[in-house]
Amino acid sequence: MALPPIDAPPRLTSIAASDVAALAAGTAIFGTGGGGAVYNAQIAAELSLVEHGPVDVVTVGELGADDLVISMSGIGAPTVGIEMLSANHQIHSLMREGERAAGRPITTLMPAEIGGSNGIGPIGWAARLGLKMLDGDGMGRAFPDAAMVAMNVAGVPCDFAVMSDVVGNVSVIKTVDLHWMERLARALTVASGSICLGVHYPLTAETAKGAVIEGTVSAAARVGRALLEAPEPVDAVAQAVGGVILLRGKITDLDRRTEAGFARGSVTIAGTGADRGRLQRLELQNENLIVLEDGEVLASVPDNITIIDAETGQAITTESLRYGQRVAVLAWACDPLWRSPRGLELAGPRAFGYDLEYVPFDPTTARRAL
Amino acid sequence: MALPPIDAPPRLTSIAASDVAALAAGTAIFGTGGGGAVYNAQIAAELSLVEHGPVDVVTVGELGADDLVISMSGIGAPTVGIEMLSANHQIHSLMREGERAAGRPITTLMPAEIGGSNGIGPIGWAARLGLKMLDGDGMGRAFPDAAMVAMNVAGVPCDFAVMSDVVGNVSVIKTVDLHWMERLARALTVASGSICLGVHYPLTAETAKGAVIEGTVSAAARVGRALLEAPEPVDAVAQAVGGVILLRGKITDLDRRTEAGFARGSVTIAGTGADRGRLQRLELQNENLIVLEDGEVLASVPDNITIIDAETGQAITTESLRYGQRVAVLAWACDPLWRSPRGLELAGPRAFGYDLEYVPFDPTTARRAL
Repeated sequence: MALPPIDAPPRLTSIAASDVAALAAGTAIFGTGGGGAVYNAQIAAELSLVEHGPVDVVTVGELGADDLVISMSGIGAPTVGIEMLSANHQIHSLMREGERAAGRPITTLMPAEIGGSNGIGPIGWAARLGLKMLDGDGMGRAFPDAAMVAMNVAGVPCDFAVMSDVVGNVSVIKTVDLHWMERLARALTVASGSICLGVHYPLTAETAKGAVIEGTVSAAARVGRALLEAPEPVDAVAQAVGGVILLRGKITDLDRRTEAGFARGSVTIAGTGADRGRLQRLELQNENLIVLEDGEVLASVPDNITIIDAETGQAITTESLRYGQRVAVLAWACDPLWRSPRGLELAGPRAFGYDLEYVPFDPTTARRAL
Repeated sequence: MALPPIDAPPRLTSIAASDVAALAAGTAIFGTGGGGAVYNAQIAAELSLVEHGPVDVVTVGELGADDLVISMSGIGAPTVGIEMLSANHQIHSLMREGERAAGRPITTLMPAEIGGSNGIGPIGWAARLGLKMLDGDGMGRAFPDAAMVAMNVAGVPCDFAVMSDVVGNVSVIKTVDLHWMERLARALTVASGSICLGVHYPLTAETAKGAVIEGTVSAAARVGRALLEAPEPVDAVAQAVGGVILLRGKITDLDRRTEAGFARGSVTIAGTGADRGRLQRLELQNENLIVLEDGEVLASVPDNITIIDAETGQAITTESLRYGQRVAVLAWACDPLWRSPRGLELAGPRAFGYDLEYVPFDPTTARRAL
């Protein structure tokens, strides 16, 4: 077995209750404005880990022939998710139907997306079920569509999805592609009161290889710890993600509307302090998608853009943006997988309806906060 | 084995292509205005029987320990069903997932409702799959809600439903009750383009006993044959169902709107000939629910009300009603099961939002056409 390279960041081998706060702060940063508020999921995960003990975290390379990984996520309106909590029976019916559909036991949970509450939720369920967590996820951030996952970029088909609601209903859907899966899953979710819990995309040690974004659970913990422990959290977060603060300022305009279940619109941030006189506009579709200044695109999807609190460095989700907030605009490069032709086809600017050529974000040359 | 009583009507033991026209005419009568137009299903069934040979029809009493019956129906908007035909792969995925969910082979198909196209559709699929047909159904007519079935009246739970669409998507839903099943099935159907094919309610020889309305496939064939062969089809149909023609006249007013996926409204029929001067109004919710004359309820759900063509005796579905049509209003008693307290709770007038006490329809005392 090869030793890890000398400069590889330390990785998480298990998650205890005391790790969750940092993980939650980190997954919120990776939410790039979406993925839902992390607080409820954080409380639930802490409680589960206190009750059931720490969860083992494994890498793709550590998976054995008997392992079956399944992606887990909440589906629906985050605003509803805050008020309608998941029930224990939901996870048990997901596992029962998931194992029946897969024809073998599920050993390992993976967050469908590391960004936001979906990056934290599976930890608590893994503790309750005695399962392992995979150090990786399907997006490396948050995206609004189930088709925007690394496994899809890598060409691995999704055999099924299982969904359960708080009422006790459970559904197994097998679709011709991920767009249909998203469509049917959304329809079921709306019928169930706009929030469901789901597992999908069973992966073996073989199929997971090269098809998930690895190390993102460790990365979220590292970024969250930097945020919580550093004296200058904004700079610490930027450094931890290997990114750049594009602007420091305050929100002077906010155009946000809910369309077809998505928060859409734009937010305008006027520079303050050394950045006075500068103006940036961000395009939003659940996540922060594009940063514009003087007609120039400074960063765009699939690269990562998160608006963070100017003092605490904590991420602000698109639904929590408010007029007058003091913020910093953080951007950093996406996983190389998203820069492949297939990755850009699925999650580049054009996939979100923007008629512009993707320019990879480069932190060394980016226009940054002064 | 006891001999059947002397006056028992002859029963169907197999269905050939040459039986389908009569069956279709009969199921249309049992549609009580709903259940969808039968023509497409008739053509498809005839073709399947020509290609694959006749289908055996069995009674509940003839089911063995190895038999598993499953109810089959189209779900969605009949208007879409006319244009978007079912695909062969749909039935195969239904069977595969249905057998997986049941854990045993499916041997026998049953129409979820005998009324309308759903009474005919399963015949063609049974021929293609080499399965038997049960001489019975879940409603003895057509109803708009999956919860309005004999199995539910009898207290037999529905283990699962499987749905498939023409695209190739297939879903298995397990719900806490039939209202949730209807709700999730509708949501999936709308997402799939408003028409799906489904199987649900697996029944064994044991659970089917007393929980289905027996003999309705034979009855539909008998009624259809009377309609097609008699010189006076209107009277022949009334006699075949053991019912009464309440009025002969023409449609003088039609208030029909589509609400929440249902055809709702009312139709007014002015008597002609000997019935001149009489006026009846029928309340519609997909099916014909209530017949009123001079403020008196002449017949109401769950008893059966079908508007038929004054010349041909053919049933007219609520969506095919037109101003000026010459029609006869036919009513006959429902299966006794629907008159039980549980039956009326599920499908009595109040279940459809009408604040009136159910009065069982009695053909011997009913106000009839003159």
